[in-house]
Amino acid sequence: MKPEFSKWIFFVTLSFICSVPAVQAAGTDPLPSWNNDTSKKAIIKFVKTITEHNSPDFVPVAQRIATFDNDGTLWSEQPLYFQGIYALDRIKATAKDHPEWKTTEPFKSALAGDMKGVMATGKEGVLTLLLTAHAGTTAEEFKQSVRDWISTAKHPETGLLYSQMVFQPMLELLNYLRANEFKVYLVSGGGVDFMRVFAEEVYGVPPEQVIGTTIDATFEMRNGIPTIIKTGKLVLLDDKEGKPVGIYRNIGRRPILAAGNSDGDLQMLQYTTIARDKKDSTPRLGLIIHHTDADREWAYDRDSAIGKLDKALAEAKQRKWLVVDMKQDWTRVYPTSGK
Amino acid sequence: MKPEFSKWIFFVTLSFICSVPAVQAAGTDPLPSWNNDTSKKAIIKFVKTITEHNSPDFVPVAQRIATFDNDGTLWSEQPLYFQGIYALDRIKATAKDHPEWKTTEPFKSALAGDMKGVMATGKEGVLTLLLTAHAGTTAEEFKQSVRDWISTAKHPETGLLYSQMVFQPMLELLNYLRANEFKVYLVSGGGVDFMRVFAEEVYGVPPEQVIGTTIDATFEMRNGIPTIIKTGKLVLLDDKEGKPVGIYRNIGRRPILAAGNSDGDLQMLQYTTIARDKKDSTPRLGLIIHHTDADREWAYDRDSAIGKLDKALAEAKQRKWLVVDMKQDWTRVYPTSGK
Repeated sequence: MKPEFSKWIFFVTLSFICSVPAVQAAGTDPLPSWNNDTSKKAIIKFVKTITEHNSPDFVPVAQRIATFDNDGTLWSEQPLYFQGIYALDRIKATAKDHPEWKTTEPFKSALAGDMKGVMATGKEGVLTLLLTAHAGTTAEEFKQSVRDWISTAKHPETGLLYSQMVFQPMLELLNYLRANEFKVYLVSGGGVDFMRVFAEEVYGVPPEQVIGTTIDATFEMRNGIPTIIKTGKLVLLDDKEGKPVGIYRNIGRRPILAAGNSDGDLQMLQYTTIARDKKDSTPRLGLIIHHTDADREWAYDRDSAIGKLDKALAEAKQRKWLVVDMKQDWTRVYPTSGK
Repeated sequence: MKPEFSKWIFFVTLSFICSVPAVQAAGTDPLPSWNNDTSKKAIIKFVKTITEHNSPDFVPVAQRIATFDNDGTLWSEQPLYFQGIYALDRIKATAKDHPEWKTTEPFKSALAGDMKGVMATGKEGVLTLLLTAHAGTTAEEFKQSVRDWISTAKHPETGLLYSQMVFQPMLELLNYLRANEFKVYLVSGGGVDFMRVFAEEVYGVPPEQVIGTTIDATFEMRNGIPTIIKTGKLVLLDDKEGKPVGIYRNIGRRPILAAGNSDGDLQMLQYTTIARDKKDSTPRLGLIIHHTDADREWAYDRDSAIGKLDKALAEAKQRKWLVVDMKQDWTRVYPTSGK
């Protein structure tokens, strides 16, 4: 081997191996569960635009923040937000200590397994259930309770574990963004402590990148052990206007990509994608997952009590947000169910 | 060049260049502004213990979370927390719109430049000043105001910019930890929005890794522009018990290293270093910066109104926290002042 050639091999191999983080090998498809259609092309075009060094729209790594709603965006949310089902299970398990629940809503409906009755008490009722189910436990007890539930409880219609009802195309999107040095966050109406139990394993999102509805906590030395105790007081309702507030509190800078599926995500999409002034020319992508597939998942939007999508869908056209049609755009929905 | 030799060169060079993140080249000192004494040795020993792959105490990268107090730990805090000085400057600048301040504490003392009078109103008085100075502004206005102040205002005694009053040995420690794949956070009583303006430039800590006292915010579309408005309502007082709570809210897992300098850091040190049960054998390091150097900085502890260090110092021995003696352990204090 001639020195010149060995040198050439050296640098080519070096530049290949040293590309950190691992980039997609040429020719492999980063989004195999997406049809080769408008949505997939728009996503790939956006990522290339902001990551290619010679692009006029190159965005430095530190600013590559992407925020994803969870319920209905990364996993299913019917017939009730999964955390609502967890709260129902927990209310039932602790009902013997609370005889008054038999006659008081939303507990009465919850104990009767009457989901429609629970839904009829509105978001406030659901929130009351969640806060009641969580109050007074230590952080460690709560974590263990969720861990036990998520590894055993099964969805009433599909029979799948809830962690099996995540969307395969979205897992691919999260990985694709991370391979392009995005920092991926969850920003969800779900409880932050609830999601942190499984977010790392299921989505590859570490606890410090999970933002969610937050109830207050206190700290004390309990029998010599440092202990965090959850109170029942809400400090962030991470829905609607609460989403940009949560992002501002926890991240402190605007994302360049946000994905949601309901009107609860409207303000996050606005905050992420609308330029502040004429100098602000950073490319930004808003994504809406539209539930259109009654066969493989559920079909709902404007009239749904859960994941209502109305205003955000109307605004999508004006803002050029990408509306992903689950039926059209995805070749499969769940990782393991074969659909 | 023979093929074998070229191959050898290739792999040696490759392994050298590809070591990501950059590790300290053998022989260079990662902490040059620290005397080769007990403190420096203990820090280096801890880091080696948890990072060497064949160590029984190896800690995976994801768990290498380090939290640092800011005031008095990473920069000076006398004669008043620097953000207090900023708030005073801002109160003065807006006093003409508030004639009632002339007769009401803590504003009266603040306007008279009477720091002792302000301190006499206690932590509540200082907090009132801070909240008043910040309320009602948009996030963008506030950021610009701090940016202007920090790039021009000078310390009344040293004549230095406040950003020049950071501790050089601590900058080296932050870099050393990051080179060993720690994720470094600020966890400080200071305002989160205040610190985020300069934390990235001064400490290399990105906004999403800054946790601090937090006042609430609201989101609205204002003239078509997505806008965050700061309210005057406190949602996290990131001091004492508030520090573990802030860590729990924002990070969601316990650090393995925490550094502070006052009783306001006691609970963070407890939360970080005390094992939860006998199975919890992860090595953990608590650091207390003891202000012992009246010549180069200030000397104070038990009797100081600012940065009072009493209980935490008493507990340090029992907990085996490392007490850093600024006078003994540091060969220099500030990066540029030559001391």
